Amino acid sequence: MRNVAIVGIGHSKFGKRLDVSLPELAWEAIKEAIDDAGIDSSDIGFISLSNVGVWSSEVSPAAIILDYADLNPVEVIRVETACASGSAAVKAAYMAIASGQVDIAMALGVERMNEMKTPEVIEILARIGNYFWEFHNFGPTFVGYYALFATQYMNKYGATEEDLARVAVKNHYYASFNPKAHFPKKISLEDALNSPYIAWPLKLYDCSPISDGAAAVILASEEVARKLTDSPVWIRAIEGATARANHSKREDLLGIPSARIAAKKAYKKAGIDPENPIKHLDLAEVHDCFTIAEIMAYEDLGFAKRGEGYKLIREEQTYIGGLIPVNLSGGLKAKGHPIGATGVSMVAELTKQLRQEVERERQAPIEKGMALAHNVGGTGHYVFVTILSLHKP
Amino acid sequence: MRNVAIVGIGHSKFGKRLDVSLPELAWEAIKEAIDDAGIDSSDIGFISLSNVGVWSSEVSPAAIILDYADLNPVEVIRVETACASGSAAVKAAYMAIASGQVDIAMALGVERMNEMKTPEVIEILARIGNYFWEFHNFGPTFVGYYALFATQYMNKYGATEEDLARVAVKNHYYASFNPKAHFPKKISLEDALNSPYIAWPLKLYDCSPISDGAAAVILASEEVARKLTDSPVWIRAIEGATARANHSKREDLLGIPSARIAAKKAYKKAGIDPENPIKHLDLAEVHDCFTIAEIMAYEDLGFAKRGEGYKLIREEQTYIGGLIPVNLSGGLKAKGHPIGATGVSMVAELTKQLRQEVERERQAPIEKGMALAHNVGGTGHYVFVTILSLHKP
Repeated sequence: MRNVAIVGIGHSKFGKRLDVSLPELAWEAIKEAIDDAGIDSSDIGFISLSNVGVWSSEVSPAAIILDYADLNPVEVIRVETACASGSAAVKAAYMAIASGQVDIAMALGVERMNEMKTPEVIEILARIGNYFWEFHNFGPTFVGYYALFATQYMNKYGATEEDLARVAVKNHYYASFNPKAHFPKKISLEDALNSPYIAWPLKLYDCSPISDGAAAVILASEEVARKLTDSPVWIRAIEGATARANHSKREDLLGIPSARIAAKKAYKKAGIDPENPIKHLDLAEVHDCFTIAEIMAYEDLGFAKRGEGYKLIREEQTYIGGLIPVNLSGGLKAKGHPIGATGVSMVAELTKQLRQEVERERQAPIEKGMALAHNVGGTGHYVFVTILSLHKP
Repeated sequence: MRNVAIVGIGHSKFGKRLDVSLPELAWEAIKEAIDDAGIDSSDIGFISLSNVGVWSSEVSPAAIILDYADLNPVEVIRVETACASGSAAVKAAYMAIASGQVDIAMALGVERMNEMKTPEVIEILARIGNYFWEFHNFGPTFVGYYALFATQYMNKYGATEEDLARVAVKNHYYASFNPKAHFPKKISLEDALNSPYIAWPLKLYDCSPISDGAAAVILASEEVARKLTDSPVWIRAIEGATARANHSKREDLLGIPSARIAAKKAYKKAGIDPENPIKHLDLAEVHDCFTIAEIMAYEDLGFAKRGEGYKLIREEQTYIGGLIPVNLSGGLKAKGHPIGATGVSMVAELTKQLRQEVERERQAPIEKGMALAHNVGGTGHYVFVTILSLHKP
């Protein structure tokens, strides 16, 4: 197996991006990534595209994006694992290089969800849960699913609505320094607590927005990476797992079982102590589609014991200076969540962090040289955990 | 790079399959493949799913298929490259093993197109062409696109409607011996020529049907394959390429440029002489979504010189006993074309042929031990060429 390094990253402004078409939005990230890598687009041997795209009139978006970006005849595969699709794209591009198929590959994530009206988007997302058994019969939306997690968690462990709100406050705080964020503005605890309920106990500020955006990462084999850059960021592990789509068959709603499995696999591969992963990691980007999801992620990833994740945010341990800074990009909550782009965006963001190239106010101290991305599709239907490092495997 | 072998295959009956749900249809192929490989489903470390699925109420089908088939928590990635999606699934599973990620992987293709009414399916397929520039402005459907190829080809090279009909007659002839085929029945040249025009010069019998079906292949690393079977079928190459979505920008409509590129890459990797590939191959499955597509495939793959592909069928050189037997499964034309399953079905079929396990009347003589699959998405928006062999790379 060959080592794989990230040699280029690109990222569009996230937000409501009806100013551009889907291929134009993709191009913003592609262009930046190609320039960052210092390659010509014809050097790319394989592209994996993440675009869930069910809100779009284009049924097979890879073809039109390649055509617009003048990337033909490159081999392409579009991938989908719901909101974890971006990580699936990184995984596919990673495998293309690790297997010796090509020397340079690009993972591209792009989504333009605002092409459709919000109620329709909410319905389509809800169908990702489990259309036949759950959506069709009982009608839960995704905020409804996560509200079930939140109520069970709060009831069992004593977390409060304030704890949830604290996640939103932190992520908006860091987003305020990220010019690519959908909502680059601070909010107060009162703002969050006074926002209207969407599905009790989750309020407006507990929810990530419906965003448009694109992100790209260019990967290379070790030999090529050495020629292209002095600061390669290595993919030490990218591991996936899945959980039952039918929530009534899950053991409990206190965490995401597939996240625990994916983390375990990734830690093993990257040589991280699963009992104390924080000692290896400088920072993490986790899938805070709703604030409760970030708190469960702390536990599923082993940053806190089960039932104690809410204490990390209550004690501000996931701010810079705490035990482990989390979501310094603003997270899905405030950076935004164009679902096909999110996983690629996480990897691009962490690469920039490890290179110490992000805005000063949100730059994590890089001492251990390792970072983690946690990307969830559905409510854990699909999970990928990725470990990046400045140190070669 | 590790060698990868096919150690198990499964295939549902193709046809109008409203008797089963999507997960049930998938299970027919999964069960057969697992039994054929002699493994337990928990041995599978990675699954790639091909399901275009835009006609389905389920937005993220991998989750419900894994749940139904009790395959959680296995890592999964769903892939899409239009009608070539099945090959993209095989490629992803291949890369998962070649890269050393896992030792056993499954590529699964399943499609249930009859969930929607035919006119709606035709519209969705047409959007795959190029929604914005072509479908929205001019309204071509896929039979319309391929009619443009047919008219240009016939005008330039002198092929006739009879030549197109001969492809349908051959493929129905072989389908008549394939119990898994959508249309297991012979037709005469008169039947084909007397069928109604759909888009001149293409008639009903020049078109593949709207089918439901599933196929699965289980791949393993060399070490594991040796333990599982005495007759591994090796993947010698699986190479993709793409062409412009915008047909007005193509050089001509006499062939598929991306098919030529994918074939060239695959031949190089598999050690096949691109000037005379037939001397290495016992048989091929090619993407005959319309009869003209099979004739163009002969040329794009180098089985015939440009402009002479129609002579191969006119002289019956692609029947058993001819230069190279093509589509002994019945092809898309008569075996059926459940678009996400097709590429996986081709690989399953060729594996069975190389093992000499198909019905006697349609078994190719296996002398060279090599076979080729050619799978096209759109009109060459995506193409994969796969080379299978009884001989290890």
